Amino acid sequence: MTQAPHTIRLAVIPGDGIGKEVVPEGLKVLDAALAGTGASIERTDFDLGAERWHATGDTLTDEDLAAIKEHDAILLGAVGDPSVPSGVLERGLLLRLRFELDHYVNLRPAKHYPGVPTPLTEPGDIDFVVVREGTEGLYCGNGGAVRVGTPHEIATEVSVNTAYGVERVVRYAFEQANARRQRLTLVHKHNVLVHAGHLWRRTVEAVGAEYPGVSVDYCHVDAATIYMVTDPARFDVIVTDNLFGDILTDEAGAITGGIGLAASGNINPDRAFPSMFEPVHGSAPDIAGQGIADPTATILAVALLLEHIGEPDAAARVSAAVDADMATRARANQEGGPLTRSTSEIGDAIAQALRA
Amino acid sequence: MTQAPHTIRLAVIPGDGIGKEVVPEGLKVLDAALAGTGASIERTDFDLGAERWHATGDTLTDEDLAAIKEHDAILLGAVGDPSVPSGVLERGLLLRLRFELDHYVNLRPAKHYPGVPTPLTEPGDIDFVVVREGTEGLYCGNGGAVRVGTPHEIATEVSVNTAYGVERVVRYAFEQANARRQRLTLVHKHNVLVHAGHLWRRTVEAVGAEYPGVSVDYCHVDAATIYMVTDPARFDVIVTDNLFGDILTDEAGAITGGIGLAASGNINPDRAFPSMFEPVHGSAPDIAGQGIADPTATILAVALLLEHIGEPDAAARVSAAVDADMATRARANQEGGPLTRSTSEIGDAIAQALRA
Ligand SMILES: CC(C)[C@H](C(=O)O)[C@@H](O)C(=O)O
Ligand SMILES: CC(C)[C@H](C(=O)O)[C@@H](O)C(=O)O
Repeated sequence: MTQAPHTIRLAVIPGDGIGKEVVPEGLKVLDAALAGTGASIERTDFDLGAERWHATGDTLTDEDLAAIKEHDAILLGAVGDPSVPSGVLERGLLLRLRFELDHYVNLRPAKHYPGVPTPLTEPGDIDFVVVREGTEGLYCGNGGAVRVGTPHEIATEVSVNTAYGVERVVRYAFEQANARRQRLTLVHKHNVLVHAGHLWRRTVEAVGAEYPGVSVDYCHVDAATIYMVTDPARFDVIVTDNLFGDILTDEAGAITGGIGLAASGNINPDRAFPSMFEPVHGSAPDIAGQGIADPTATILAVALLLEHIGEPDAAARVSAAVDADMATRARANQEGGPLTRSTSEIGDAIAQALRA
Repeated sequence: MTQAPHTIRLAVIPGDGIGKEVVPEGLKVLDAALAGTGASIERTDFDLGAERWHATGDTLTDEDLAAIKEHDAILLGAVGDPSVPSGVLERGLLLRLRFELDHYVNLRPAKHYPGVPTPLTEPGDIDFVVVREGTEGLYCGNGGAVRVGTPHEIATEVSVNTAYGVERVVRYAFEQANARRQRLTLVHKHNVLVHAGHLWRRTVEAVGAEYPGVSVDYCHVDAATIYMVTDPARFDVIVTDNLFGDILTDEAGAITGGIGLAASGNINPDRAFPSMFEPVHGSAPDIAGQGIADPTATILAVALLLEHIGEPDAAARVSAAVDADMATRARANQEGGPLTRSTSEIGDAIAQALRA
């Protein structure tokens, strides 16, 4: 398994709240996974998030962005803090990164590990991925307001969808489906959002013609939230827009046993820019600073990162180590009660398993 | 309980699919509930939906609309059929009614009846209402597309939100909360949809100042889909925009034991136009024509209708009859298996209980 020695330039953005606690565990596991492979990490830490904003007023400067672009990949913890007005860090930092680095695929696997408690009575075999579009839709920041604060205020938000943008993410989703169980579900709301919805539908039809082996299904977003609860095993690959993907992946996190296990990749498949890997959860100010956040989502994000940068063996070993850790948890649940481990104890356990 | 004899002018729109099967059961129950009260129903049936569109090309003519306006209330089954292009009936009929009749409150109660199977292991005490805005947001039909069908297509959908529109629905929600458990949760996504989100947030703050007894909470829509599954009992009144309300109420239907039990009122609280009551479920073409649809959602919509038109006693009796029917189902579930009753058998049972 030893390869020629090479260096992976990694930009690290711990961000806010529990982001700062889970990222070190991800890095611990990353080092353990790469030990002996010939690959080593050259890390740059970026001080971005609430503290930086309070100190300097910056969210993400052009210089930060230029420096980040010089890396092979990005590991991000979480962004957002109650001390910063809502939207400032989300739009100015997290979404700016996704848009400027053209992360048009937001890949979010959802998998239920055997034995992990789920809120569903009959979860079935949950194992799907959501391919969420990452650079269009209502996330464009294309909106505005007039007469703000008066009784005549009007505020608009514009969902922008392009054939170019939809086609590339739909194609990626078909590739995923082809490599999985050959089922693709488009989620939209084309009975109301007729313009955007029909663009998505036509695109799925057109691209689908190139993938005759993949069966295609359609679901309105409202119905999709029902299936998530009543029959999530029906899904293999879901392709959807930015907002619907945001909503469905949180629900998917909940049904698979908690958002502490859900990882995501903000991917530029063309490799024009570095891709960014992060847990789906946020900065969770309510539990930050206590060392109790589950770093598993970040560790699974590291597996996605390894896959993306061409280290599939290391990625598979991280996944296997997480599988094993999940089995340990399941055993503990059966034998009298859940394990209570700190953030770093979970990271240590998984890193240790990798080095063993 | 006998009042002065009076007539309630009811516009009836069975619509498509199972709409045609559940509406007669709703009417059966309505008659039973009003028997002996002095109130009687003067019914006008409106032939609207897929068949009418195929025959004439009309969705809802100005004449239909003028005639409907001459009524005290509307009972609607469901709208939509696979034989009609997506959006034609939804926008041209259902949404046109909601918009033209200024149904700015879309009231959707969610309640888990004891003993009714739910997909959740620990449903807790689910009893909340969603106050969904009904005349703004992404449902305005304010969107368009250029270069359709070319690689340069751009499709937009615009969410329009006004202080006027948000304030009136938020006020209604506070009134609801005040009459319930004094908890109001605003659901939005103000960290991304900063313009619309902040309008909603400021409005909830401003109106909330008039309701010091109501505690106010906020939840991003993605997080709300999680709580729906992990802790739905936390909700009392949810106020949200048109699209988020659409999504959350389907999920709410799923967790309370199925969309076959979820009713809704499209309400114009100012009584400038007749309000419209309907099940949350759609026309369900997959089960239409078999007489197996559950009419309970429509019957609960009839209870909302009775409440709205000033027959609270009759409304309470319908609710109680549904409660009793739910208890019968729960007993059957415990004693060896679910009841298998046809659509009309359920309607008969509830109507009979009311006449007893
Ligand atoms: C923090 C927020 C802007 C973000 C999003 O809405 O995309 C988050 O919810 C996510 O899903 O990554
Ligand atoms: C049929 C559709 C237009 C409608 C909506 O989106 O409002 C339905 O889903 C509902 O919730 O009443």
